[in-house]
Amino acid sequence: MSDTKDIDALIELMAKLPGLGPRSARRAVLHLIRKRGLLMMPLADQMGRVASTARECLNCGNVGTSDICDICSDDRRANGEICVVEDVADLWAMERSGVFKGRYHVLGGTLSALDSIGPEDLGIPRLMDRVVGETISEVILALNATIDGQTTAHYIADQLEHQVSVTTLAQGVPIGGELDYLDDGTISAALRARKKV
Amino acid sequence: MSDTKDIDALIELMAKLPGLGPRSARRAVLHLIRKRGLLMMPLADQMGRVASTARECLNCGNVGTSDICDICSDDRRANGEICVVEDVADLWAMERSGVFKGRYHVLGGTLSALDSIGPEDLGIPRLMDRVVGETISEVILALNATIDGQTTAHYIADQLEHQVSVTTLAQGVPIGGELDYLDDGTISAALRARKKV
Repeated sequence: MSDTKDIDALIELMAKLPGLGPRSARRAVLHLIRKRGLLMMPLADQMGRVASTARECLNCGNVGTSDICDICSDDRRANGEICVVEDVADLWAMERSGVFKGRYHVLGGTLSALDSIGPEDLGIPRLMDRVVGETISEVILALNATIDGQTTAHYIADQLEHQVSVTTLAQGVPIGGELDYLDDGTISAALRARKKV
Repeated sequence: MSDTKDIDALIELMAKLPGLGPRSARRAVLHLIRKRGLLMMPLADQMGRVASTARECLNCGNVGTSDICDICSDDRRANGEICVVEDVADLWAMERSGVFKGRYHVLGGTLSALDSIGPEDLGIPRLMDRVVGETISEVILALNATIDGQTTAHYIADQLEHQVSVTTLAQGVPIGGELDYLDDGTISAALRARKKV
């Protein structure tokens, strides 16, 4: 149907978003068409604006609208701490917690022999440069507790040995977590790292 | 952070789509930013294009880019059959099956005393007009097998009695369905409507 060609093309593009399949993309597009003025127009405008202005921070890999992101250009955050994360989503999660006041380094992935992702692909040499150039005293590895994440953490810790203090996030029972629902690995990690009350 | 204001605004708009929450909206926006050229730009353009051209068919309520949709203006589909559906998504589902060759009438919802949705809100008077004006011989009620859907079906069947033949979709075991996974209502409906082999 030539009449719905544009709508079909939009559904096809929407279905490429993570978390949306063909069915939910159709539902989303119908919802958008119903709310043309209130939602679809503003969303298209905003998406076009971000598409043309968004860029990755040349220093840390965070996304923003300038070459150096707000966090990297904020002098109050130059406290000698760098938090290494896999992904911008992890950086955002750290920021939401509001506890960390230093700067970040976004790897954009993990080391993986299978996918031939090496240290250069993750900007690890750049991290080394930053540790020297920005006079960093502590590198906090906030990588996911997956095999790839922990392999990458070990590699970075190895590289930075003797240069700077390297720490990693504590592992244990999540706040609000029920033992019954936790996996064995988490319980044994929490037990091994038990603390005196 | 002023730097990410635009990105935050985009996430907020994306989170209004059905099927996306704040978390999956963030993930989708990060994915878009990573694929700025390949996906985000075309999606924003296409969304803007559809937002400015999409409209509802004045005759049947289908969405398209002209005042009268392709189905309503296709003379080969004037075979005297109107299929009544709740929603445009249902119309699309019927079209994908490729079996129905008549025209449609999209109600845009179901009768609901609780939400004070009456026959006028669903364009049921317009359906009556079409039945007379387009010399319709059969009205096929393809409404959802929910309580509201079936209430609406009964109301329409009542209104059209003596004017035209009114049919409804058969109820039974879905193709590929396993009895063990079917609800009791479907099994008893299929049993009541059993056919000679």
